[in-house]
Amino acid sequence: MQAQAAEAEQAGTDAVLAGYRRSIDNIDAALVCMLAERFRITQAVGEYKARAHLPPADPDREARQIERLRRLAEDADLDPEFSEKFIRFVIQEVIRHHQRHAAAEAEAG
Amino acid sequence: MQAQAAEAEQAGTDAVLAGYRRSIDNIDAALVCMLAERFRITQAVGEYKARAHLPPADPDREARQIERLRRLAEDADLDPEFSEKFIRFVIQEVIRHHQRHAAAEAEAG
Repeated sequence: MQAQAAEAEQAGTDAVLAGYRRSIDNIDAALVCMLAERFRITQAVGEYKARAHLPPADPDREARQIERLRRLAEDADLDPEFSEKFIRFVIQEVIRHHQRHAAAEAEAG
Repeated sequence: MQAQAAEAEQAGTDAVLAGYRRSIDNIDAALVCMLAERFRITQAVGEYKARAHLPPADPDREARQIERLRRLAEDADLDPEFSEKFIRFVIQEVIRHHQRHAAAEAEAG
């Protein structure tokens, strides 16, 4: 029995762990889809701002977003520091997209 | 009219932009809640692994997670490089949690 348990552990076939991992995989799929949708919207925002001659970055808006997500994180028992790191990570990627877009436009023009 | 439009732009009260931002804010709230739930599960995994004497890290599992999320990202038209950076960012935080947990246990013992 002990040898079997050790084997199950080594093979990663532990049923409890497998159950947790299915939940994690489902959540990760949802996160990736949500991020994909978020970037679809920020791409539309980038195009709209360029047409409307609005500045690409808005530091006040970013500060409000960070504060709001810290509060939501606290309510959900998530470390607000991590929440802030996460949204900064995403915003950085959005800025990188905008820069790539602007560079492509400049090249085309 | 032009002065009004300029004012609306400066005040960030542009209706189109406000609509996009409401969608982004909704998605961000969902992302934070999903991340909170993900960390609830990885915390349970950490405790379970400690009890079952399983190693805290599993590089094969991580590699499979990264590959799967890259495929999901491609299907959702999200940059797979970003998807990989994102999941590595989350896994790093999970490892940080486990280390903090282990340090607290060592101190308590």
